[in-house]
Amino acid sequence: MAAAEEKVTIIGLGLMGASIGLALKAAKLPNLRIVGHDLEGDAMKTAEKRGAVDSTERHLEGAVEGARMIILAPPPLAIRPLFEDLAELAPQGCIITDVSSTKAEVMRWAKELLPEHVSFVGGHPMAGKEESGPRAADADLFRGKAYAVIPSTNATDGAVKSVLGLVSILGAEPIFIDAEEHDQYVAAISHMPIVVSTALFTLARNSPGWNEISPLASSGFRDLTRLASGDPYMNHDICVTNPDGIVHWLDRMIAELRRYRDLIMDDHEGLFNTFNAAQLQREAYLVGADRPVRERVEMPSTGDQMNAMLFGGWAADRYKKYEKIMRRNERGDARPGVTDDDDDE
Amino acid sequence: MAAAEEKVTIIGLGLMGASIGLALKAAKLPNLRIVGHDLEGDAMKTAEKRGAVDSTERHLEGAVEGARMIILAPPPLAIRPLFEDLAELAPQGCIITDVSSTKAEVMRWAKELLPEHVSFVGGHPMAGKEESGPRAADADLFRGKAYAVIPSTNATDGAVKSVLGLVSILGAEPIFIDAEEHDQYVAAISHMPIVVSTALFTLARNSPGWNEISPLASSGFRDLTRLASGDPYMNHDICVTNPDGIVHWLDRMIAELRRYRDLIMDDHEGLFNTFNAAQLQREAYLVGADRPVRERVEMPSTGDQMNAMLFGGWAADRYKKYEKIMRRNERGDARPGVTDDDDDE
Repeated sequence: MAAAEEKVTIIGLGLMGASIGLALKAAKLPNLRIVGHDLEGDAMKTAEKRGAVDSTERHLEGAVEGARMIILAPPPLAIRPLFEDLAELAPQGCIITDVSSTKAEVMRWAKELLPEHVSFVGGHPMAGKEESGPRAADADLFRGKAYAVIPSTNATDGAVKSVLGLVSILGAEPIFIDAEEHDQYVAAISHMPIVVSTALFTLARNSPGWNEISPLASSGFRDLTRLASGDPYMNHDICVTNPDGIVHWLDRMIAELRRYRDLIMDDHEGLFNTFNAAQLQREAYLVGADRPVRERVEMPSTGDQMNAMLFGGWAADRYKKYEKIMRRNERGDARPGVTDDDDDE
Repeated sequence: MAAAEEKVTIIGLGLMGASIGLALKAAKLPNLRIVGHDLEGDAMKTAEKRGAVDSTERHLEGAVEGARMIILAPPPLAIRPLFEDLAELAPQGCIITDVSSTKAEVMRWAKELLPEHVSFVGGHPMAGKEESGPRAADADLFRGKAYAVIPSTNATDGAVKSVLGLVSILGAEPIFIDAEEHDQYVAAISHMPIVVSTALFTLARNSPGWNEISPLASSGFRDLTRLASGDPYMNHDICVTNPDGIVHWLDRMIAELRRYRDLIMDDHEGLFNTFNAAQLQREAYLVGADRPVRERVEMPSTGDQMNAMLFGGWAADRYKKYEKIMRRNERGDARPGVTDDDDDE
């Protein structure tokens, strides 16, 4: 079995899909063949040229034929029609995972559309950059980043282990989380901020004074508006698949801005205390966020072991921990839904 | 004259003051002595250790005695009491400039408090970074950045030329602008964004779900909240000295967020078009912002010329342009208030 070629298919060769391809190639798994598929011929060409995939397939059928694992990395709204097609086309016992920024809708679609014989494990790597598309792809994009993992109810143990293997190869840190909670939490620190960042840009850009204002803009404005440069399909689909979470946090953000408005108008001592606490708390947050992540995953040395990492059997320790967490969750005695490597014991 | 020592005093040795000191030292002006003063002994020690100043003075009187130029770089609210002291202490004919983020109040205080014999030229370099304090100081902080220059009505030609010389030595690009307009424009792209960035952080940080949410936060959240790490005294003083500008733009930002909220709820085509236009417009903005700035200022080769750069006589071409602009402004036929190097002819 170790000598046989294993096929992984990446569908959607934008920043995420192509970065996963580059990371898998960099891991030099033996006998692994990575096939890429995208609706855009240009994306396929670029991804292949950059070495993110071994080959590309213009037709979905050929792309997924014989694949052990299918990684879906298109904008979120493309997931549903892909599930419809994969219901017919996915090979028996295939592992399917995705990297969509919203998870509740995706998990519902999977339950509704995918056949029993495939194992779907939802995923969301918390990584990104200002540029989009395969030209911006980076094998290290996921290194040290959180990676939400959400197995469907009928995913096999082997499939979950395989996706954990993928997460490890990417250098990311898995976090098991409930889909609805994921969407609420990510709305707070990723989706609503996309809207805020874009709104900050469009407000200035569409103001009549833009020609006078823009020469004064500096690095602060650039950094704060960088999410306005995100792929508009992606941003649109995120909003459309997580509207409740985003609107909830937008309303809270508007209320928070009103609180600052009142402080500026009426309470300068409160304003100072707020800025002061924010600086201290952010410093503490950065120290925590900057803590050295687990050392690079020890890559197994034999071809057998390498493939086992991606296709089951590997990551046993981590999976044991996951099982323990799931059991605790069922018993209801864990912090609900969210776990990470530190909350064990 | 060239052989005589010229003294420049920097008051306030935070990120800005210490960076100016480092840049002046890097320019290796002959016979220039830079004296630093700060209320915090630690800041003075650090600035001296880093080579941002030649020496420090614990007492303002000694710090400014005999100075040709005094550069004020404390938080904005400290400017007024400094003007009160400098009214007594500033040497005859001294040039005073500042780097405060708000300008209308500062210009009013200068008019009210400073004696006729000193020349005040307001300044605001549009530069910053995540860290604050003299440890974070950087000689290249201002390179290629816009630098608002606002002469007081009684500033001499020589004083304006000297501040332009300073701007050139820092590698920045001067923009002549009216103080009230400055405060409105900068509220839009710097001050209101400080509030938004801080609010984004405090909203998440003070939410009951923070322990669950924060492990999912990634580079987007970090970049967007980075202004929450600014010096709280600075942020407080900015809000207190420019409340109208900031509240005006906060109200517009809240309205803009409501517009996005409506798009997310009711108009997905409009939402896509908005994200799409924002991406294209920001790309165009970045191309413009990234255009190569004027090549490094040609540094004069003799000691005489070097000192002339900082202390008058230099920058004649630029000053001629400034006079032309001022005349146009008086005639009322220019774009009001704002000029840069490209709008000439």
